[in-house]
Amino acid sequence: MFTVRVRDRGSRARAGTLHLAHGEVATPAFVPLATRGAVKTLEPRDVAGLGYEMVLGNTFHLMLAPGPELIAELGGLHEMMRWPAPIITDSGGFQVFSMGHGGVADEIKGRRGPQASADSSGSILAVEEQGVRFRSYLDGGERFLGPETSMAVQAALSSDIALVLDECTPFHVTRDYTARSMERTHRWLTRCLDWHEREGPAGQRVYGIVQGGIEPDLRAASTQEVAASRCDGIAIGGSLGQDKPQMRAVVDWTTAELERVAPSRPRHLLGIGEIDDLIEGVRRGIDTFDCAMPTRLGRHGMALVPDPGRRWRIDLHKPRFRRDREPIMAACRCPACAQGFSRAYLHYLLRARELTGLRLVTLHNLSFVARVMSDLRAAIERERFDEVAAQLHAGAAPGAATRSTS
Amino acid sequence: MFTVRVRDRGSRARAGTLHLAHGEVATPAFVPLATRGAVKTLEPRDVAGLGYEMVLGNTFHLMLAPGPELIAELGGLHEMMRWPAPIITDSGGFQVFSMGHGGVADEIKGRRGPQASADSSGSILAVEEQGVRFRSYLDGGERFLGPETSMAVQAALSSDIALVLDECTPFHVTRDYTARSMERTHRWLTRCLDWHEREGPAGQRVYGIVQGGIEPDLRAASTQEVAASRCDGIAIGGSLGQDKPQMRAVVDWTTAELERVAPSRPRHLLGIGEIDDLIEGVRRGIDTFDCAMPTRLGRHGMALVPDPGRRWRIDLHKPRFRRDREPIMAACRCPACAQGFSRAYLHYLLRARELTGLRLVTLHNLSFVARVMSDLRAAIERERFDEVAAQLHAGAAPGAATRSTS
Repeated sequence: MFTVRVRDRGSRARAGTLHLAHGEVATPAFVPLATRGAVKTLEPRDVAGLGYEMVLGNTFHLMLAPGPELIAELGGLHEMMRWPAPIITDSGGFQVFSMGHGGVADEIKGRRGPQASADSSGSILAVEEQGVRFRSYLDGGERFLGPETSMAVQAALSSDIALVLDECTPFHVTRDYTARSMERTHRWLTRCLDWHEREGPAGQRVYGIVQGGIEPDLRAASTQEVAASRCDGIAIGGSLGQDKPQMRAVVDWTTAELERVAPSRPRHLLGIGEIDDLIEGVRRGIDTFDCAMPTRLGRHGMALVPDPGRRWRIDLHKPRFRRDREPIMAACRCPACAQGFSRAYLHYLLRARELTGLRLVTLHNLSFVARVMSDLRAAIERERFDEVAAQLHAGAAPGAATRSTS
Repeated sequence: MFTVRVRDRGSRARAGTLHLAHGEVATPAFVPLATRGAVKTLEPRDVAGLGYEMVLGNTFHLMLAPGPELIAELGGLHEMMRWPAPIITDSGGFQVFSMGHGGVADEIKGRRGPQASADSSGSILAVEEQGVRFRSYLDGGERFLGPETSMAVQAALSSDIALVLDECTPFHVTRDYTARSMERTHRWLTRCLDWHEREGPAGQRVYGIVQGGIEPDLRAASTQEVAASRCDGIAIGGSLGQDKPQMRAVVDWTTAELERVAPSRPRHLLGIGEIDDLIEGVRRGIDTFDCAMPTRLGRHGMALVPDPGRRWRIDLHKPRFRRDREPIMAACRCPACAQGFSRAYLHYLLRARELTGLRLVTLHNLSFVARVMSDLRAAIERERFDEVAAQLHAGAAPGAATRSTS
């Protein structure tokens, strides 16, 4: 299901192709979120037009509404949302555990803007060996998510890649808790794979998830355990620490171990997507990423720009953009910039809460990330990864690398 | 500026072309609202893609934010919103007077869905011969709108067609009030035209507005007065009564008089856009229409369908659409239906408050209206107006008439 075409000599970066039931995905790739069966503000043709070959649907939200039975009745998630290309679905675990663990604001993953989703009105009732009982944020009703439930829901969604259910161990727990949680995740991995072997849809691939928190030996143990399973690919989940250096260290240990025990299986890094993290993730051998960042920022009027000093973003609500006639980014080929919409106009639309403004900034952000990934893929293929990574880190406009070598 | 190409033999319907500073508009035409400088949820390329050649910007909203100075600095409204084709701007009068007169819910025009705009938080302070003092709904500050102000703002916007400021006489007033209000509107007409002659942008056309409420003799007098002025076109404004028969009667008297005194000038019917009203307006000789209906309904999940028994609309929020795999409308060529989005999916998106859902229904509705107008234009050109109007009234899918004769 995965072909590695080129491996970088100076790093673990690699360019490859995922061969999935609904088509191929060139890697490394970013996977935009279609949380509730739509990439927010966009149509599938927009997402494909930006160059994306895969999106991610959230099992947690989709199992609550419209529900797996209805999605199956409507022909599966692809057919329902009219996205003909590959889809990853997550397991639902991250959202369920986010309701219970709290404290995610201290972690690098899970930080949210001012308008967090409605998850917080739900709650965990019990975490047991069988699975998790929780209260739906939609109707207050009690629901259950266990390894088999998660796989069954993902089977109904008919995604190309399903993720096994893991316990998303939070950051503020003891080493002992992390170790016991990881062991449960490994038992759930086996149950997920057993269920999938018996009842999973033909052609659906399953990724196991490495846990172990920020403990090097636990991460190594988890990596070996997951690699030893029948899973088709491997995702890195759980707490990635409280800052970027810690997150990169966790990814580093894990992919170093994966190089040893599972060099040919594809790797997904869950919930990470800032520009520098994408570059550094690719360097460490990550093949796919998903993150709410570009779309969520877009809906908050934050536009991505090639400026590492500003965390690659500007806040278009700021008064300084009121009279700014420039596009978000000079020479940008995204639909918003290429059509000539000025920062002043976007500033105005965002302040007036016009939905057109949210859409335009979302298009820009996803286009920006798509070009970063395209640059990184091209760089690996041309044996210039280090050079291009340094250029992007220094604030080179994405797309420049691709242009200069094509 | 206006060429009448074909006049229907059995009615006052006519097909023509408006020749405007930013291009031509085939009439009869519907003009979508770009209230705050954007057709809500859409980009200009979407609106053009549906076949529209002109949009309407609201002077009232745009003068409050971002303001005429900034819009002029950004190159005018066309440049700011990146819509290269013709734009009509209204005078701001309708919104200002809606804040003061109240009781619009009893009138055929001005009825609103559950989420009315923020206008109601502003208020009128005084209506004087010079103009109207009112409180901004944005910052509570006092503002003034008079005939010269309105024309100056519209000059800054650089619209292709400016409307003169009129007093929008409400429905629940005495005949005497209506008569005095109409006379003030006529004095304001002269002041608007005087200002425009001295300071208006070259190439901007000005429409006068016929008032007179539901009094046949006042409507006739107003029509004669406006027709006798130097205005380039004529809009029908003010109270159009409390139901469709009364509204059609008012339009009928007015266009009958216009046939006599201004047969070659273009006519715009303000704020009317339901499907049957479009058909009957065209029959009575209206050339252009604007209305919030298709876009506002879209954002409320109401989709247009060829079903006069249901007022040409279905509410996609209704539970009966939960499992409905059909598109909004069979064989519909709109972007939502042509891409195969089902009613069930739209129902789900709307309930989940996904912005993609609002956009898709808006696209459908504007496409539906565009095809109704295209059918009516084609019918007039082919001397089949009566037949096509009857088919559309009976629930023929728009686009069918065009197809069957092409």
